[in-house]
Amino acid sequence: MTEIALESGALSLPAVVIHGGAGEFGRSSAPAELAILTDGLLAALAAGFEMFVGGGGALEAAVTAVASLESSGIFNAGRGAVATSEGTVETDAAVMDGNSGAAGAICAATWPQSPIRAAQAVMALGGPSNGPILLAGPGADRFCEAADLARRDPASLTGEGVAPVSRTGTVGAIAVDLEGHLAAATSTGGRLGQLPGRVGDSPILGAGTWADDRTVAVSATGEGESFIVAGFAHRVDWAISAGEPLEVAVGTALEVVRARGGNGGAIALTKNGQFCVAFDTYAMARGWRDATGATVRPIRADR
Amino acid sequence: MTEIALESGALSLPAVVIHGGAGEFGRSSAPAELAILTDGLLAALAAGFEMFVGGGGALEAAVTAVASLESSGIFNAGRGAVATSEGTVETDAAVMDGNSGAAGAICAATWPQSPIRAAQAVMALGGPSNGPILLAGPGADRFCEAADLARRDPASLTGEGVAPVSRTGTVGAIAVDLEGHLAAATSTGGRLGQLPGRVGDSPILGAGTWADDRTVAVSATGEGESFIVAGFAHRVDWAISAGEPLEVAVGTALEVVRARGGNGGAIALTKNGQFCVAFDTYAMARGWRDATGATVRPIRADR
Repeated sequence: MTEIALESGALSLPAVVIHGGAGEFGRSSAPAELAILTDGLLAALAAGFEMFVGGGGALEAAVTAVASLESSGIFNAGRGAVATSEGTVETDAAVMDGNSGAAGAICAATWPQSPIRAAQAVMALGGPSNGPILLAGPGADRFCEAADLARRDPASLTGEGVAPVSRTGTVGAIAVDLEGHLAAATSTGGRLGQLPGRVGDSPILGAGTWADDRTVAVSATGEGESFIVAGFAHRVDWAISAGEPLEVAVGTALEVVRARGGNGGAIALTKNGQFCVAFDTYAMARGWRDATGATVRPIRADR
Repeated sequence: MTEIALESGALSLPAVVIHGGAGEFGRSSAPAELAILTDGLLAALAAGFEMFVGGGGALEAAVTAVASLESSGIFNAGRGAVATSEGTVETDAAVMDGNSGAAGAICAATWPQSPIRAAQAVMALGGPSNGPILLAGPGADRFCEAADLARRDPASLTGEGVAPVSRTGTVGAIAVDLEGHLAAATSTGGRLGQLPGRVGDSPILGAGTWADDRTVAVSATGEGESFIVAGFAHRVDWAISAGEPLEVAVGTALEVVRARGGNGGAIALTKNGQFCVAFDTYAMARGWRDATGATVRPIRADR
């Protein structure tokens, strides 16, 4: 198994960190394909950071960055979502506000053009104890319709005209605003050829998505089942609360995923701007941006 | 808010601990209604423990106890599941094997007569990294149909002939076998009048359900959204792994749920037979059984 690659650093506030999935893409990719990924990541960083410029907070930045990745069509989320074993498209997404603890998620949804906007709309229904957090299946679809959310073109699968470079490319964004508030957002089309109804870690709070101002914001990607039974994002959260350095917390949690038989990667960010990227695949599309600039890397730095 | 009631003790191996939900039931219940609850709990303890007698392990005991609670029709799970705002019934369930780390879950499912058996069938599809863990909505239903699982009577809601004493009565069971292996199982009909598609903490591993031989088996009940954003079961898990006493771990996790605006209760069990019940509602239907006998309590001991 490939060793874990770790990258970390300090960003000035506000900042946004994104990923476009961990996997084996890039190993034999043409430079043009890597350029498409790079452009998609840069566009998402720009869209997310633009929210700060407009006075928005971490939640708006994370959701907007994910929405950009979804609409690009080059990642496995939103417009680029891969098909199930029956050729249908089912999407999952979650968002969490580290300040209020509010969260929203959808799974096995077919309606929304932007699953992360649908998750945000669920979050808007209420707080932790006042409204639903997770809507699944037809109930999620009807909620989206009633909320007037834009509908996915029912005929659209991964377009023939767009190279889906990142076949395992769940997307995610984490952000910290000037006040030190954190947010996390994750969106996915699931696994290519998955059983209809299968839901991975992305919409599961504490597995693929988590944000708490007191600890960390996390978005994961990879073999979702292993991230679920590893309790991945919660594990990062409690390690930070126990005083572990960010890199150790994320690396150790990824080791637990590996012990559970899976692999993948994650991004994590604290309220003081410390961030970490960890993955044990050949590639992980990722990037970060603050007022001082932007960095984007589609594959392993050591390859 | 009601203070947290804590009960704990030591059971000999093998043992099973169950709950039939936390809530306000029992406050004005007739003795006959409490007798119905008591009988339902005793029957489930008997069914679960019988698995040990037949040579079964913790997983069989936990699933069988929950299946008994589901089929009784007097709890909010399986046959007794409450209706959504549209009069439909959607069920959620999860099971986790503390020995292998394997897990299975369904949510927003309408097909299965026994949601916990459906979750067990999903678990049988594969391990953490080999197959799906969570199936949602129509995909879950079609999986159940293809697996030849018994179908819920589509016309059946909470029967008029059966008093659903426990309106918030998610059910759950945790078990430890002679080898010290743990398992957890939880099943629910959701909230009465909930938005179709709404999924609470029961099928979310790390929120309402968790089992790991190295730490603890947990099944929760209550205001599911708060248990999700509290990361309830994971929080118990890591507290145990950090060396906290079981009562402290469960009580502290429930305090986090309360801080998130919710309430409810949980049962927890370690591989040496230490168990704990915690709840902050008027009542929590609960019971435990080992070779030395059975205890069942439908409401608070101090009322």
